Amino acid sequence: MSKKISIAIDAMGGDNAPDKTIEGVKLFLDTNKSNNDFILNIFGEENIIKKKINKYNIKTNSINIIHSNTVVSDEETPLTAVKNSKNTSMWNCIYHQIEGKSDISLSAGNTGVLLVISRMILKMIDEVSKPALAGLWPNQNGMNVVLDLGANIECSEQNLIDFAELGSALFKSLFPNEKPKVSLLNVGSEEIKGTELLKAASKRLKDLSSEENFIYKGYVEGNNIMSGESNVIVTDGFTGNIALKTAEGTAKFITQNLKKSLTKNIITKISLIFSYFSLKKFKEKLDPRKYNGAIFLGLNGPVVKSHGGIDSTGFYHSIDLCYKIVKGNLMSEIKKNLKLSKGV
Amino acid sequence: MSKKISIAIDAMGGDNAPDKTIEGVKLFLDTNKSNNDFILNIFGEENIIKKKINKYNIKTNSINIIHSNTVVSDEETPLTAVKNSKNTSMWNCIYHQIEGKSDISLSAGNTGVLLVISRMILKMIDEVSKPALAGLWPNQNGMNVVLDLGANIECSEQNLIDFAELGSALFKSLFPNEKPKVSLLNVGSEEIKGTELLKAASKRLKDLSSEENFIYKGYVEGNNIMSGESNVIVTDGFTGNIALKTAEGTAKFITQNLKKSLTKNIITKISLIFSYFSLKKFKEKLDPRKYNGAIFLGLNGPVVKSHGGIDSTGFYHSIDLCYKIVKGNLMSEIKKNLKLSKGV
Repeated sequence: MSKKISIAIDAMGGDNAPDKTIEGVKLFLDTNKSNNDFILNIFGEENIIKKKINKYNIKTNSINIIHSNTVVSDEETPLTAVKNSKNTSMWNCIYHQIEGKSDISLSAGNTGVLLVISRMILKMIDEVSKPALAGLWPNQNGMNVVLDLGANIECSEQNLIDFAELGSALFKSLFPNEKPKVSLLNVGSEEIKGTELLKAASKRLKDLSSEENFIYKGYVEGNNIMSGESNVIVTDGFTGNIALKTAEGTAKFITQNLKKSLTKNIITKISLIFSYFSLKKFKEKLDPRKYNGAIFLGLNGPVVKSHGGIDSTGFYHSIDLCYKIVKGNLMSEIKKNLKLSKGV
Repeated sequence: MSKKISIAIDAMGGDNAPDKTIEGVKLFLDTNKSNNDFILNIFGEENIIKKKINKYNIKTNSINIIHSNTVVSDEETPLTAVKNSKNTSMWNCIYHQIEGKSDISLSAGNTGVLLVISRMILKMIDEVSKPALAGLWPNQNGMNVVLDLGANIECSEQNLIDFAELGSALFKSLFPNEKPKVSLLNVGSEEIKGTELLKAASKRLKDLSSEENFIYKGYVEGNNIMSGESNVIVTDGFTGNIALKTAEGTAKFITQNLKKSLTKNIITKISLIFSYFSLKKFKEKLDPRKYNGAIFLGLNGPVVKSHGGIDSTGFYHSIDLCYKIVKGNLMSEIKKNLKLSKGV
């Protein structure tokens, strides 16, 4: 029997934890009833977690509760995190991972602290200059990996090259049958557009472009992020964060207005009877919970950050993301990519 | 009788010009039949324009055709524009404006060239460091002014302060009954977030915030651009361009998928009968043609750039925007804002 996929879950992070996190675990277990290839290591206050496990009627050998008596507070800043967060449920997840007992960690807690702890304990991969926060984003043909989403407010040319390699490796591990097509996010698609830094990065990505590694498709503008021509979108953390949140805000604005229009009066409500199933599918496709989970890349092991305000369905999707990342051999994909690009 | 609002229109710029532009003129004239307070100065090949004026059956004393026998090409770059674009319809618009014969210019032609020509002929306002490209963007309560949308890829702290003043003046001229509420676009709303440059600009905007000028509301994240808490969103041209285009792309992605869902089968098509008028209103509210027209600010006179690919309805909206900008006394609002902020 091959080694089981081992996921460290911080049950205490995010709004309504551990209720939401344990309900998310329940959803994951229900969906994967027939799979026996994983183990979920659940970190947090043992008594509380056991109560929730009873509440959700979880009966399985695939979980393992590991007691941690403290939790990272939402007010904790990255500056004091290392001093104050030792032995919290979040800390213990990452520690479990560096000891080789988990393959990946998941938390819905404080993002800044998670990044600092992960970086301190797991350490950076030697060849990578900075870690990046990557996310999934729907496009016309499937899914994009977009990075950096905010780990690095300012980036160098080398950072962007590293992000292209890390993003491609993540894409390959999640979608093994598709080719990673990398683009740099820019204000125009012509070569003369953008900052000197972007032009230099673009030139180097063109040289690195290859069939095995990734295909470099040049610049992509904001309006084409979702067109599906590229599937790995590389940018600095400031721009990536603004782009992601702007897309979220726009989607919310539109769907709220649509909802208002369709529930305005009795006539439009009747229309909902006829379009109910189609609109439901439409809503499901765009459901942000499906894309929940940002991935820290560049460390000696992957760490996934779930949105803090997400519900149990969203948390379930982030557990599922962890499972797919390990199953797709992300870390060996990263090493392969780095090897190819550094010409080792 | 007070002086008429005088608008210089480059009839030859953009796709399908001058057909689209003259049809846009026709729509504007039809909507403003009862107004006698404007004159449209139409620049381009006189014979062609006259033909189109006949085609659209335009009969009015409110237009004035001014012959220009050349046109700025789409391939022209800002570097050679000044040499090659003299006496084009675009050039003649701006020239008409500096001579005091028009109050504002409008073109759907080459953006880079329009910016270079406008800056060269109209010159910058002394107190302003860089011109900015501002746009309108819907929010939950009405409309935002967002700038810079791409005129300046890199910006200083002073540029952002100037953009706040220019944007507020534009907002006041377009919506005289509302107060400009300024925010800086950032990756978080807490004071510690963002680059040093943003933090310095934020500190200065807090000091400049006043009842007469603008109220500074702090940082805004991408997901709250459309929430309506601020209505003047300030950012550098790189970020602004990415944010605007990402919002456009997201809106397109969602509405395309919605359309697909609602026309999928006979049942969902029946639903459209019941929701037709509500969906039509929903579509109208989000119609990008309504927000057509980016405004160059910081020059000794406003210049409006219409989207090149827009249709006649979109072009009509950009003429209407020009009319409102002049009617709202944008230039005197700008001078008032600068006076207040420089403490003159």
